[in-house]
Amino acid sequence: MALETSALATDLYQLTMLQCYFRAEMREVATFEFYARRLPPGRNFLVAAGLEQALELLETLHFAPDELEWLARCGHFQPAFVEQLAIWRFAGDVHAFPEGTVFFPDEPLVRVTAPLPAAQLVESRLINLLQFPTLVASKAARCVLAAPGKPLVDFGFRRAHGVEAGLLAARAAYLVGFAGTATVAAGRDFGIPLFGTMAHSLVQACGDEVAAFRNFARACPDNVVLLLDTYDTEEAARIVVRLATELAREGIVVRSVRIDSGDLTAHARKVRRILDEGGLPGVTILASGGLDERKLAELYAARAPIDAFGVGTSLDVSADAPYLECAYKLVEYAGRPTRKRSEGKASWPGRKQVYRNFAANGQMTRDVVTVDDDRQAGTALLQPVMRGGKRLAPAEPLAEIRRRAAGELERLPDGLRSLDAAAPYPVEIAPALRALAEEADARVAALRSAPR
Amino acid sequence: MALETSALATDLYQLTMLQCYFRAEMREVATFEFYARRLPPGRNFLVAAGLEQALELLETLHFAPDELEWLARCGHFQPAFVEQLAIWRFAGDVHAFPEGTVFFPDEPLVRVTAPLPAAQLVESRLINLLQFPTLVASKAARCVLAAPGKPLVDFGFRRAHGVEAGLLAARAAYLVGFAGTATVAAGRDFGIPLFGTMAHSLVQACGDEVAAFRNFARACPDNVVLLLDTYDTEEAARIVVRLATELAREGIVVRSVRIDSGDLTAHARKVRRILDEGGLPGVTILASGGLDERKLAELYAARAPIDAFGVGTSLDVSADAPYLECAYKLVEYAGRPTRKRSEGKASWPGRKQVYRNFAANGQMTRDVVTVDDDRQAGTALLQPVMRGGKRLAPAEPLAEIRRRAAGELERLPDGLRSLDAAAPYPVEIAPALRALAEEADARVAALRSAPR
Repeated sequence: MALETSALATDLYQLTMLQCYFRAEMREVATFEFYARRLPPGRNFLVAAGLEQALELLETLHFAPDELEWLARCGHFQPAFVEQLAIWRFAGDVHAFPEGTVFFPDEPLVRVTAPLPAAQLVESRLINLLQFPTLVASKAARCVLAAPGKPLVDFGFRRAHGVEAGLLAARAAYLVGFAGTATVAAGRDFGIPLFGTMAHSLVQACGDEVAAFRNFARACPDNVVLLLDTYDTEEAARIVVRLATELAREGIVVRSVRIDSGDLTAHARKVRRILDEGGLPGVTILASGGLDERKLAELYAARAPIDAFGVGTSLDVSADAPYLECAYKLVEYAGRPTRKRSEGKASWPGRKQVYRNFAANGQMTRDVVTVDDDRQAGTALLQPVMRGGKRLAPAEPLAEIRRRAAGELERLPDGLRSLDAAAPYPVEIAPALRALAEEADARVAALRSAPR
Repeated sequence: MALETSALATDLYQLTMLQCYFRAEMREVATFEFYARRLPPGRNFLVAAGLEQALELLETLHFAPDELEWLARCGHFQPAFVEQLAIWRFAGDVHAFPEGTVFFPDEPLVRVTAPLPAAQLVESRLINLLQFPTLVASKAARCVLAAPGKPLVDFGFRRAHGVEAGLLAARAAYLVGFAGTATVAAGRDFGIPLFGTMAHSLVQACGDEVAAFRNFARACPDNVVLLLDTYDTEEAARIVVRLATELAREGIVVRSVRIDSGDLTAHARKVRRILDEGGLPGVTILASGGLDERKLAELYAARAPIDAFGVGTSLDVSADAPYLECAYKLVEYAGRPTRKRSEGKASWPGRKQVYRNFAANGQMTRDVVTVDDDRQAGTALLQPVMRGGKRLAPAEPLAEIRRRAAGELERLPDGLRSLDAAAPYPVEIAPALRALAEEADARVAALRSAPR
């Protein structure tokens, strides 16, 4: 399933602005930065994701002949402009936080430097490709923190907002520590481990669990996960016990059972006892059904005898924070730092760098955002990843991103690991950056007061 | 941009269940129904959308050679099963509420009848394609009700969850009454009117509004919409007044201005006065920036002099209700009605029909959900749309769906038009359906108590 890379997947104003830039010969180098304006309510940190797909987009984006044809006759553009689009390519530079990096508001996690028409046109789709994976990775990280050591599986494809969302969600969750996904295409496209069970419809179509469990175990003997809650969870568990001996004679091992409704702690305890007393201590229990990080934390705290969890809808739509206040803003054009000052949405000007500092125990203590050439103590987080439209390295293996993300969660200050809002992590705006903002504002004021 | 129709865009368990159905020779006719379990908090109704894409999926879904190859070697399936998938096609029947129909919980808006392996396999993607457009159409309908007569434009692509979500959101909003979208691909693919303005980056790159407005107006003289809030909204409005005369001499008419931040009512009033006093009463005001149905209602109630609105993020992610408690459930197999009884998630068995009744003034008064052959008073909402895998009619023109949706919103009982939760609309479960549920439960009980 190829990433959608149509150049028409954008906002109309990107194209009308390009028509303006071309006509006014505005092709100087521009720098745009992608950052979050604020954390979603109740959140303490974010995890960067989606860079791989963003770079793939930048490397391949172009206008196909049929798209140019449509643009020429849609009534919004001049023929000469559409002709120029035929040779449009992104040949710029990109600096970015590696995927899996923890970040905070005001920190540019992607910085794009290219001639203005190139850096501008990619805005809509770049935000589209960065925001959503970042949301899901950030939500998934909370789930991982809520149930340490428990395998979590993404079950959310059906309620994701479209197929691309389902695939990107599976990837984002996996890279921060989920064990895998149920989404088959994500298994193929990204090599993510696949997990699956059975649906209530199978039990219903077979009439009852006796027939359903037999049929399923014989058809899929390597992955016998039996669903208990179609009619009565504990009764179904007793059926598992009765059938296990019969199936064992056929060489089939029941691996796991799934509980998908009701009081999961209470059911899991009863089911565990039935399985143990029935001589099936090795059969694990998987729970699903409306889970999110808070319910995971409750089940974990209650020491519910649940071995693994399926997390679906709330993960794939990032239910408590379905969008991120984020922006891709022009910070420099033709060597001049610039910023907008819209009420409540002012941005910081200039090409920036973010430095992170750590305590002796390894925990992150404080970030500093400053102008690119203002070297500060700490680790510089923005790294070059693309030059002249070409990546500087092949796609990072997911295993590597998983290692990085795990390390990042380890280094989170304790307060920030809480599911509840903690004191904000310190992100300082360096004096050099504040000075640059004043300089940019003064330049605009001077321009405005000059006679034109 | 073609709809993604890969057969691997599904959950693993659909395929393992199919392996079971094939092995157990379970190929009898099954009926599944898609319905909402409950309304999202604070909502009074839903609007059906997404059927067109769902039917497109059912008509075209198949396993491509490379997908079969991958399935054969992924380790989850037996070779004989994968061979059978090569000829898998959906050749079933579909009944559905036409798009744009208002509906309520427990009402099946799509009913699929096909051999079990066909009806089962489509579950994940069918939910994926129906849930999200329905969410956006329902949210968009609230926006339309909140600002009657005001043109609304979808500005949400960048924060939609992926490209497919952005396209489907543009379509769903348009079909319930939005004037159009900024998403170019939605204009091309669905023929939705496109609207666009300019971004702050253009003003910043040009240095100030004087240069930016001149450049833009000359480059796009047919669609001069000028953005006011990059630095100072009212000062920018005064620049518009000064430039309008100069541009008029070049034959260029300033059509509109946009305000994107701050107190929109206060700014709109000041800007309106500046424009009127500057001799520009015909220049309209477009407002955007964090709008949703509640903010639209406030602006409308305040009689803010705003002529049109851009509604973005909150629409495209259905921010207050980013998912719908919905399901696609087996209701009949091999002539036997069936239902699951999972706690809190029990479903109604059997093939159903929904009848809607209206008052003399045309308002809808009461729906009855019953078994398919239990004729009730009122209009039957489920209509045949596909037989044997083929549609019964070509894709419905969006103009037609828009007319229907407008009529539906007209016929909503007054209480339900409120943005706040009202007394629920009466949806009755007919006695015949209750009797069928008892019958289905009795059959399962009998099966379970029989010696096996």
